Amino acid sequence: MLVCNMALRLRPVTVLSTGSPLSVAKCVFVCFQSCHATKPDMLNVHLVPHTHDDVGWLKTVDQYYYGGDLDRNNIQHAGVQYILDSVVDQLLKNPDRRFIYVETAFFYRWWKQQSSSMQQTVKQLVDEGRLEFVNGGWCMSDEATTHYSAVIDQMTLGLRFLNETFGVCGRPRVAWHIDPFGHAREHASMFAQMGFDGFFFGRVDYQDRARRMKDKEQELLWRASSSLTPPMADLFTGILPNGYNPPDGFCWDQLCDDAPIRDDPDLEDYNVDDVVTRFLKAANTQALAYKTNHIIMTMGSDFQYENANLWYKNLDKLILYVNANQSSGSKVNLLYSTPSCYLQELHRANLTWPLKEDDFFPYADAAHDFWTGYFTSRPALKRYERISNSNLQTCNQLEVLGGPASRKGPFGAGDSQTLSKAMAVAQHHDAVSGTEKQHVANDYAKRLAEGWQHCQVLQNPLISTFYGILASALFCFPQFSVGVYNPLAHPVTWPVRLPVNGTAYGVTDATGKPVDSQVCVLPRFISIRRFVTAALAKRGDMKRFVSEGVSSVQIHSGRQEEPRLRSERYLQVTFDPDTGLLSGLSNLETKQTIKLTQNFYWYNSSRGNNAESKQPSGAYIFRPNSSTPLVVSKTAKVQSFQVKHSVVQEVRQRFSPWVSQVVRLYADSKALELEWTVGPVPINDWQGKEVITRLDTSIKTSQLFYTDSNGREVLQRRKDFRPTWELKQTEPIAGNYYPINSRAFLKDDEDQLTVVTDRSQGGSSLQNGSLEIMLHRRLLFDDYRGVDEALNEASEIFPDGLVVRGRLFLTLDHPASAADTHRPLAQQVVLQPLLTFTDGDLSPETQLEFSGLQAALPSAVHLLTLSQWDKDSVLLRLEHQFQSDESQVNSRPVTVNLQLHWFCFSEEKLMLKEFEDPSVTEVTLRPMEIRTFLLRVSRR
Amino acid sequence: MLVCNMALRLRPVTVLSTGSPLSVAKCVFVCFQSCHATKPDMLNVHLVPHTHDDVGWLKTVDQYYYGGDLDRNNIQHAGVQYILDSVVDQLLKNPDRRFIYVETAFFYRWWKQQSSSMQQTVKQLVDEGRLEFVNGGWCMSDEATTHYSAVIDQMTLGLRFLNETFGVCGRPRVAWHIDPFGHAREHASMFAQMGFDGFFFGRVDYQDRARRMKDKEQELLWRASSSLTPPMADLFTGILPNGYNPPDGFCWDQLCDDAPIRDDPDLEDYNVDDVVTRFLKAANTQALAYKTNHIIMTMGSDFQYENANLWYKNLDKLILYVNANQSSGSKVNLLYSTPSCYLQELHRANLTWPLKEDDFFPYADAAHDFWTGYFTSRPALKRYERISNSNLQTCNQLEVLGGPASRKGPFGAGDSQTLSKAMAVAQHHDAVSGTEKQHVANDYAKRLAEGWQHCQVLQNPLISTFYGILASALFCFPQFSVGVYNPLAHPVTWPVRLPVNGTAYGVTDATGKPVDSQVCVLPRFISIRRFVTAALAKRGDMKRFVSEGVSSVQIHSGRQEEPRLRSERYLQVTFDPDTGLLSGLSNLETKQTIKLTQNFYWYNSSRGNNAESKQPSGAYIFRPNSSTPLVVSKTAKVQSFQVKHSVVQEVRQRFSPWVSQVVRLYADSKALELEWTVGPVPINDWQGKEVITRLDTSIKTSQLFYTDSNGREVLQRRKDFRPTWELKQTEPIAGNYYPINSRAFLKDDEDQLTVVTDRSQGGSSLQNGSLEIMLHRRLLFDDYRGVDEALNEASEIFPDGLVVRGRLFLTLDHPASAADTHRPLAQQVVLQPLLTFTDGDLSPETQLEFSGLQAALPSAVHLLTLSQWDKDSVLLRLEHQFQSDESQVNSRPVTVNLQLHWFCFSEEKLMLKEFEDPSVTEVTLRPMEIRTFLLRVSRR
Repeated sequence: MLVCNMALRLRPVTVLSTGSPLSVAKCVFVCFQSCHATKPDMLNVHLVPHTHDDVGWLKTVDQYYYGGDLDRNNIQHAGVQYILDSVVDQLLKNPDRRFIYVETAFFYRWWKQQSSSMQQTVKQLVDEGRLEFVNGGWCMSDEATTHYSAVIDQMTLGLRFLNETFGVCGRPRVAWHIDPFGHAREHASMFAQMGFDGFFFGRVDYQDRARRMKDKEQELLWRASSSLTPPMADLFTGILPNGYNPPDGFCWDQLCDDAPIRDDPDLEDYNVDDVVTRFLKAANTQALAYKTNHIIMTMGSDFQYENANLWYKNLDKLILYVNANQSSGSKVNLLYSTPSCYLQELHRANLTWPLKEDDFFPYADAAHDFWTGYFTSRPALKRYERISNSNLQTCNQLEVLGGPASRKGPFGAGDSQTLSKAMAVAQHHDAVSGTEKQHVANDYAKRLAEGWQHCQVLQNPLISTFYGILASALFCFPQFSVGVYNPLAHPVTWPVRLPVNGTAYGVTDATGKPVDSQVCVLPRFISIRRFVTAALAKRGDMKRFVSEGVSSVQIHSGRQEEPRLRSERYLQVTFDPDTGLLSGLSNLETKQTIKLTQNFYWYNSSRGNNAESKQPSGAYIFRPNSSTPLVVSKTAKVQSFQVKHSVVQEVRQRFSPWVSQVVRLYADSKALELEWTVGPVPINDWQGKEVITRLDTSIKTSQLFYTDSNGREVLQRRKDFRPTWELKQTEPIAGNYYPINSRAFLKDDEDQLTVVTDRSQGGSSLQNGSLEIMLHRRLLFDDYRGVDEALNEASEIFPDGLVVRGRLFLTLDHPASAADTHRPLAQQVVLQPLLTFTDGDLSPETQLEFSGLQAALPSAVHLLTLSQWDKDSVLLRLEHQFQSDESQVNSRPVTVNLQLHWFCFSEEKLMLKEFEDPSVTEVTLRPMEIRTFLLRVSRR
Repeated sequence: MLVCNMALRLRPVTVLSTGSPLSVAKCVFVCFQSCHATKPDMLNVHLVPHTHDDVGWLKTVDQYYYGGDLDRNNIQHAGVQYILDSVVDQLLKNPDRRFIYVETAFFYRWWKQQSSSMQQTVKQLVDEGRLEFVNGGWCMSDEATTHYSAVIDQMTLGLRFLNETFGVCGRPRVAWHIDPFGHAREHASMFAQMGFDGFFFGRVDYQDRARRMKDKEQELLWRASSSLTPPMADLFTGILPNGYNPPDGFCWDQLCDDAPIRDDPDLEDYNVDDVVTRFLKAANTQALAYKTNHIIMTMGSDFQYENANLWYKNLDKLILYVNANQSSGSKVNLLYSTPSCYLQELHRANLTWPLKEDDFFPYADAAHDFWTGYFTSRPALKRYERISNSNLQTCNQLEVLGGPASRKGPFGAGDSQTLSKAMAVAQHHDAVSGTEKQHVANDYAKRLAEGWQHCQVLQNPLISTFYGILASALFCFPQFSVGVYNPLAHPVTWPVRLPVNGTAYGVTDATGKPVDSQVCVLPRFISIRRFVTAALAKRGDMKRFVSEGVSSVQIHSGRQEEPRLRSERYLQVTFDPDTGLLSGLSNLETKQTIKLTQNFYWYNSSRGNNAESKQPSGAYIFRPNSSTPLVVSKTAKVQSFQVKHSVVQEVRQRFSPWVSQVVRLYADSKALELEWTVGPVPINDWQGKEVITRLDTSIKTSQLFYTDSNGREVLQRRKDFRPTWELKQTEPIAGNYYPINSRAFLKDDEDQLTVVTDRSQGGSSLQNGSLEIMLHRRLLFDDYRGVDEALNEASEIFPDGLVVRGRLFLTLDHPASAADTHRPLAQQVVLQPLLTFTDGDLSPETQLEFSGLQAALPSAVHLLTLSQWDKDSVLLRLEHQFQSDESQVNSRPVTVNLQLHWFCFSEEKLMLKEFEDPSVTEVTLRPMEIRTFLLRVSRR
């Protein structure tokens, strides 16, 4: 236990089991022993050999694994198989050498191709701390556009592999996000809760860095939650000195151009003295910006160490020759090291670190280079990733509930692992971020689609086609049944809209009782687009049947003089009859009303200019060439208008041939749905366009607005302001953009307008009372960050440019109770019901209704994860989904009795697994806490 | 002895000692055992992993050794240190793997940095035949522009290192010239005499290759001498199938783009079946062009295997998967192999190979892409290399004659090794060839200069400044002494021209007897350029003293009406009074006269054209854009005219501001000297220029002319003709150019006009009786062969473009006796006397005359090498310098009694070394034979 104290903090790993405490201590002991000795009276330079292996970017993840180029235009050789081959070889040559490895998606691919003797060799290296895993997730996730549930899943996938392969010695102790383009507070919170001792990253706003360098505040303590009790979400955080590159002039990879150490005096260009002098200067300069007599240097970069000999041979020499100068008075001491060894020395220094409570968004690396475009880039991929997460959770749950038999269906073997891995890969910071090449984006989508197929077998007995924007090609037969699986632990009201052939349907529920429904005909797609909409307000899992009927259905269309939508209980929305735009929103329950105008605009993307900066807008960067967006149309043609109806009312607005919207109000929904359709964004004027929608309200916001972090906690934002330094604003639009992962809101003392999004987007509030959200981007230039393609999406289906459709959900509440609505709403948008279809009528013995949950969980508790862990056990994660300060009702501790609530399905029963204290059946969750359990499955 | 028969031929190594015959047999036994088994009923594909490491090209040799880029513009990473590190590692991983290494200049650099345990490991690999040296010279020499003596020296340097380091198992059995741009017969002859069993190369004229592929004649027996008794100069020669690259689609180096073998069916792009299918197709296609059921594939290329894992990992898989198909009927068998293992199989096939008696010049790889420019490229470097060879031979001789004491002088330690290595490096096919980047050319010159400095110490007691074009900055004091060392084994008459300050000098020889001399004043450089010319006609080594005097010197200048130069005994040359050009040449002894007009022209270099070919003239390629050269001037201004004089007569011709010439006739010389000065070649018209001089004679040549091969045997050339295939001539000028290494001649039954050059140049005879020689080239475009620079030489000294000066020596004789003049003349031009200078008068006890040779060798015998081998022994090479058919006097066997003739100097005596039969003191040399001996030094 003494040994454990040597680390900054050691917490139980809550994301996954790491075995017994004894083995943890043993490994920590061995690993810290393996840190090289340092010299207290010298500047110790920790040289950390590392490679940064993107899980897809310019090439797909598998292409990067094998290396070599599939097409000759791709200059990146990048073969991760060779990196791992080579590093292991080189580690064996000199026991002083160290290496860290990060991306388990690659390591896993490599590992399974190795001989058992090579596997033994690698285990030995890991046990001796010569090969250290850091971060250890399947990928290094993006921080702006990922949802926390998918991040936890991908970390679990990677860490579990390491744990099962290497035991406790394979456990990463440091989180390592050297490349993501800005850093989310929620990520730090998750890492802290996962038990990491520290967090290092490379990219930070250039103004922020300059201030921190001056004040020696590049190392800090990040308090990453406003709800969790410190130090639950406290995490030591270090900003690396050179991004994640070596200092200038000391890059010795095959991809680098720096002169190697030429130490043979018989050959020309002998440079040992020069190298030593330059290195000492670099080290001493770097030390000026950090507090201790230890500094870290990241000796590696993208896909480096494919020929590790180059690096190590020169690092060996560097250490030899620089340290040799100590005998003549030099006070610089070089050593091979790892982030955890470096961290240990910082801990020993026993300093107080500055506290950080906000986040690191937005990220700019120069005055006009704000990395805020990728918040929105590739909106279709971002949506597909989000609904894939929903499908994965459903798939995981059904695999648990269905038991082993669920993996075999009439259409072959199924599994959740394929989708699980595809989703893990999609979390990469050049995946869901939208900053990969087009062919790589296609690959991510293909992997997800393959994952869906593997899940379909588990979604037996009713082979499913998931409802979504992509399902429009499916038309239901005259008589059919629909199964609806709700993956949430609470009942939901969820509208079901299906394309059908008939003009009139009768709908009944599981008990045979009629359900309200209507068939409406879309004016432009009458021949192919007909939807039955049915309101389903039931708890847990259920099945629904829709069968053809002839009565009780009406079709409505036409135009009203004074457009207005009003549901019986919840909402009223008004439109300006002159412009066709939204004009006001009321909550009928609370009797709140705000002015609300909404329209669509586009920023004209900069192509770079000579005057200020050559930076164009691109996949990463958002840079409008003017701070005033251009309006798509000042007025909307209200093309279709549904009168008040029992199920749904719609106003269809057409702004231009490439922008339209359906404003939709469901009878029993507290949210107004804005279904926008944008595209193909025209580029025949050779102008890149970044399309936003803007909500202008009467709310008095005083420059403040709020955005969430990875779908969990919400951070306050202030225009032209950063909490930790005096901002010099250089990009009035892009410099105020923040990621909106699941929601954003405006509020004053009376009113809070919350917008829940269906995917990650960028947004801002540039005027008081105004909230803008970027929906789609179509650009003509690359932004010089390596992807080397303009973000100009088109495809066979959309040859003129991608058309994207999405939804915003608007709620209006009092600030004190708004979360009671937007928290469950956002979870419903993230985890949608799964629909499955059966042709014709069902046999009489079919079970028509089922719930895996004996009762709904308390409203504050979210069922985050339920998935099969191994043959005998099931992983369960419960989450308190409210912050500590946002709801009088829900922002309080809540206790769940696991045995009381838990599941049953077919012949099995799920129980708590034994290694957790079997007496603990009650779990108390405080706001924003996540608790993880392994349950044992016992068959009856 | 049985084992020896397994090789094609095994001859005693005459270039260097390889130890006892017993150990040769043992090693051959082991190494051939190490060849993998082949399958007689299958097509056996010999995969030969190799790297081609230029000893300088885009980077200097040392830069290539260390790798990494000194300047960022250089895209070649290329670190040979890493190649050897990596290959050794990878060989150890799988005993089946093989590798060949070629360039000892690099291997030597690497070897001396290795630990003794690594050296032991490598020895083991060599002993087991897993690492095989091929070629083994210091570099892979150029074949067009190298002189045979320097080639032998560089081969000796490399082979000796291998022999002393690895013993007989390190002995290369195969010559390997995969990259040189055309192949000289003399190289094959030397390789045969060195004991190589075979010779492989990659580049051959595309028409030649097409014909040979059709007729399966890419493997042949080269009879490489018309004088040596077969099979002395017979050598099996193989033309490799893909230059020296792998077949298309199978390059797996980090420098390549081909897809690796992706054999994990779980990952995308699984391609094993595709790779196997493509490879079988490639192998079967290649087999169609060769005779046996064995084919060779060169799996590597320029600077490949820096990360050998990539290659070997994929080759292992290739062999595995392709051979796996044998179980389903495939008849293709892959194996790791080496050239000698492949050669062994060809030998076992017991076939008769086609005979080749000419050479492989010129080389074209497409219809307009004749690699005949480099015959002349960088004429100054070519000259510097040639006089450096002379200096090295002198240095070697003086090191022997001076004994160990000679290595220490008043100015520090001296050695011949520095120049020896610099010369060896300079033989590389991108060195003296002139096809390297400018900074690399500078490096070669710098290395040579450093070599000269190291030699100066040996040239004690009179510290020398070697006489040459570069010596013009030196001016001799009023009284000084000159030492003249003649490195030839025959007395020479050699004019000494020195820059002086005075206007009149008296000159005396070693005995105090006056010597004829004259001071002449060059019109343009009267203030700085004054030369004393003294005729020295003495044998062996000697010293001469030039001291100031006041009498017997006359200065002559002016212009004659009927210009004519006539020496008393030997020659008369006439000029056309109207044009100032040469008009005739007479041999006064033989009473022969020919018409001889000489002028200067330039070809306008093609910059590539769309009509025929985009190929421009460049460092490698000669491509005039018209077949008619432009005349520099139809007339020459005869600016200065020396009347007949006892020492030398001169006519100075000025053709333009950038072309001039001195026609010089020494009283006792049989050769007319044409000292041309060309440059700066003007390019302000944006036209590249390739400057020639053309001699138009009355000799009836019937399209025939003659050029030498590497300074030794002479080959007959015929315009628009190749001896072994029906030439389709596509470049009427460049396609008729051949390398002139030391001489070219025109002849008919009566007259032979021989031109001896002072460096390698390109030339041709395009009209009957005409001989043109290219002198200088200045180009504006790169020729797309990788050097990526235009050959546009300029420097600080020559900011407007390089000025080059050189000499052509013309002799006119009867064909049957011409060699009696041009053979010794060419050797005198190659091996010039070394001049050393002493300020003031000498002390009375100074030894004023000395000869290391007791008597001159017979006129047919050339002292090729005399150099210190080790502490106790001296390397001696004697050469019969005449062909079998060129002289009635000299083309006959000649016997030398070594003991009779041999040397003495100071306190030592040189004797034959004991391991040669001590009874053999007489050596008989037949025409063109070279014999090598080790002499033991015994001190008296």
